[in-house]
Amino acid sequence: MTLLALHLDRTSDNPLYLQIYDQLKMAILAGKIAPGTRLPSSRQLAQAYGVGRITVTQAYRQLEMEGYVYGRTGAGTFVTDDLPLSAGAAAVPFVPALSAWGERVMAIGKDGRTPSGLRPEIDFGFGRSFPHIFPYDVWRRLLARYLSTDDAMLSRYGSVAGFYPLRQALADYLQRLRGVRCTAGQVVIVSGVQQALDILARLLLAAGDGVLVETPGYVDAFALFRLHGCRLLALPVGAHGFPVAQIPADCRARLAYVTPSNQFPRGGAMPLKAQLVLLQWARQHKALIVEDDYDGELRYEGRPLAALQGLDTDGRVVYLGTFSKVLFPALRLSYVVLPRALVTPFVRAKGLVDRGAPTLTQAAVADFITEGHFERHLKHLRQAYGQRRQALVAALERYLPGKVQYVAALAGLHVMLYLSPQVDEAQLVQEAAQAGVGVYPGRPYHVQEDAPPSILLGFSGLAEPEIEEGIRRLAAIWA
Amino acid sequence: MTLLALHLDRTSDNPLYLQIYDQLKMAILAGKIAPGTRLPSSRQLAQAYGVGRITVTQAYRQLEMEGYVYGRTGAGTFVTDDLPLSAGAAAVPFVPALSAWGERVMAIGKDGRTPSGLRPEIDFGFGRSFPHIFPYDVWRRLLARYLSTDDAMLSRYGSVAGFYPLRQALADYLQRLRGVRCTAGQVVIVSGVQQALDILARLLLAAGDGVLVETPGYVDAFALFRLHGCRLLALPVGAHGFPVAQIPADCRARLAYVTPSNQFPRGGAMPLKAQLVLLQWARQHKALIVEDDYDGELRYEGRPLAALQGLDTDGRVVYLGTFSKVLFPALRLSYVVLPRALVTPFVRAKGLVDRGAPTLTQAAVADFITEGHFERHLKHLRQAYGQRRQALVAALERYLPGKVQYVAALAGLHVMLYLSPQVDEAQLVQEAAQAGVGVYPGRPYHVQEDAPPSILLGFSGLAEPEIEEGIRRLAAIWA
Repeated sequence: MTLLALHLDRTSDNPLYLQIYDQLKMAILAGKIAPGTRLPSSRQLAQAYGVGRITVTQAYRQLEMEGYVYGRTGAGTFVTDDLPLSAGAAAVPFVPALSAWGERVMAIGKDGRTPSGLRPEIDFGFGRSFPHIFPYDVWRRLLARYLSTDDAMLSRYGSVAGFYPLRQALADYLQRLRGVRCTAGQVVIVSGVQQALDILARLLLAAGDGVLVETPGYVDAFALFRLHGCRLLALPVGAHGFPVAQIPADCRARLAYVTPSNQFPRGGAMPLKAQLVLLQWARQHKALIVEDDYDGELRYEGRPLAALQGLDTDGRVVYLGTFSKVLFPALRLSYVVLPRALVTPFVRAKGLVDRGAPTLTQAAVADFITEGHFERHLKHLRQAYGQRRQALVAALERYLPGKVQYVAALAGLHVMLYLSPQVDEAQLVQEAAQAGVGVYPGRPYHVQEDAPPSILLGFSGLAEPEIEEGIRRLAAIWA
Repeated sequence: MTLLALHLDRTSDNPLYLQIYDQLKMAILAGKIAPGTRLPSSRQLAQAYGVGRITVTQAYRQLEMEGYVYGRTGAGTFVTDDLPLSAGAAAVPFVPALSAWGERVMAIGKDGRTPSGLRPEIDFGFGRSFPHIFPYDVWRRLLARYLSTDDAMLSRYGSVAGFYPLRQALADYLQRLRGVRCTAGQVVIVSGVQQALDILARLLLAAGDGVLVETPGYVDAFALFRLHGCRLLALPVGAHGFPVAQIPADCRARLAYVTPSNQFPRGGAMPLKAQLVLLQWARQHKALIVEDDYDGELRYEGRPLAALQGLDTDGRVVYLGTFSKVLFPALRLSYVVLPRALVTPFVRAKGLVDRGAPTLTQAAVADFITEGHFERHLKHLRQAYGQRRQALVAALERYLPGKVQYVAALAGLHVMLYLSPQVDEAQLVQEAAQAGVGVYPGRPYHVQEDAPPSILLGFSGLAEPEIEEGIRRLAAIWA
């Protein structure tokens, strides 16, 4: 009896039977009650600790179900014999060997920690949205529509390729407003552009394959292609995006990853002629083009430029779009428009590695589009972001005249500033942080080593006075 | 002028400037207006078609921005020269070559189509939830809490490893109620168990590596390991789950994938001794154990069995859990509890291939847990599903006495029926469908070729009278 030495805490939320169960279990695992030992009867234990007999029986029953003890009719309850306990074994943590892919993850990846507590007072972070612009009241209403016990939709697994009405709404929207030519069947919903790129790379590329990219360019896409063991063939962009004329004649790239509507992060659109030449190159070299239209909707003059995908006549272009920039980033919903030949491989692959996106969100976005909220919201966004961009440019002209260079395109959510060569990029970022201003180094976006110093200024999360004040403080550092 | 031959539709929703833009663009791409051609002046075109001059200017401006035309001061607007048009080229669809992985996807994967229109009247589909049990009113309230313009949370990208309050809530819950030993830092949120398995396989396994699995077992996990080129070493389970004693002495498996709390799909729990032997085997063979606790919460007597992970002393066990079964499938939220050594590789990998799960859903689930709704809901589920299971078993005893075998464990969302060897499984499934009853073949869950005929009956989406009626109809087929 004394060998059990239970400590029951009657003030705890943890029921007494669980306390008895837990302590007996730990004692057995630690070898403190030897295998084969006969436990006190439930009556004895109940008396000894002043608890109800049913409490002890409950604990014994759970221990028996889990295999710690067994009952022999008429003889009592015994600790299971021959338990292969590791109590004596030193518990040296196991460090599993990583695959070659795993080693690349460790070399390329970043830890997913949220940046440390101190958010800068004025944060020119890229890709953030401004909460006051999004119509959360509409969104709440659309979500609530499906959150009812009368609706069986949420109690089933969704479709791997995506919620069909959303695919239809997107196909219609993309044709009308982005110049994309597709049917709903070619539209597949993904969690993000990153997932789309990952599945495409796995489906189409082998280690050692060449991938044409822009520099500066989207660093997360670089990381992804590197993760697959691909070689990056980076062409430095000019004011008009990807420089097709500079593709080397002997280039064997199997894929070109480009941002034709608004080059990321430098800015600037790829002219029609260059787009047609790129398509011609792809046709000649049996290559695929991935068009990342991450913010094509956000142009502040004219209508958005038509997508490269619309010029494709033989299924060479994969078009990527996202709701992160035009709805809100935490939504985690993007889409890919696939050439017909890739639909089945892509959907099958997605079904094997990730199933579908949450149905509720997809249904709400579908209604948001078909009921006209999306285009109305885009109008608001264009106005709001256009003004913010103007405020940024005005502040740059006022406080830093002639000191920085940037592409003048009226588009996007950020401006990339190229600084004069003698500026120390890292030092500037640090000094800005000390002045309460978050600006982001341009270095990581460049594949080439000798990139001129640059910084990224996202303006979508800031109000106009904050933008002006931020630039004023930046200029003070320069002085 | 006549060469333009525009057809303007004044009744269309499409603005006139866009109609002009679209038709000129198509004509240029098709080579119908030759490169270098001078377009009519905006005044001429406006007069000819009876539209405002600003309409034409808008169309020309968009064409110019996209590179179709260019303006020469004083001379007019010209179609861009030297456009490399492919109008003449035959548009044979491009079929890109797939990687080895892509070829395996095509061999293993299924098309993600929703099953064809006809849903059976009584559907014993697995893993569906019963909409009337879930507290959608609570859920709506929790979501609405974060859907406000005052809350900046949704306008930022979330954390890759998951929303921290949810990781904390899960760590607490798993320790208290599932016997898992972990800190919040070891809990990572994923879109589904499939994503967790995919990342683990990529991090840890190479093509040709052996993986120990149960047969019958979780067919989607089989598919995933096969997709990675792994060899499946399948051990046939008995009434007590994974048969550790049958692991061959020369087994070189690097990973064992098991369902100790309730073997999927056969049912039955792995006794403590077998769990300890498996841990010992893993220690001796430098192998990892993946514990898929897909429905461990759903036991209808006693409390849920403690997880194998809680017995692990040196970081060999990866624990997988999901909200699909206990909240609703369309939620797409699961979690993985990682040994400390795997946290950084896993989170970095997830950051590279998929970022984080939607913040809103995660925040709502966190509140659902910490405010006590989750445990209350689990109680309701246990009662509701326990009764449904009882109804199913009662119907089997009544209508099919002695004709079928199944594991009697009071747990889970389905029962796997083993039929007598002379029954033709596929024919039974088909005849059941004709009688309006959806039952699912057991064959795909078995790795071995000579598996006895079996069917899966999920009961979680059906009311008790439907369950009885379904079994009555099944029995009529047998007769």
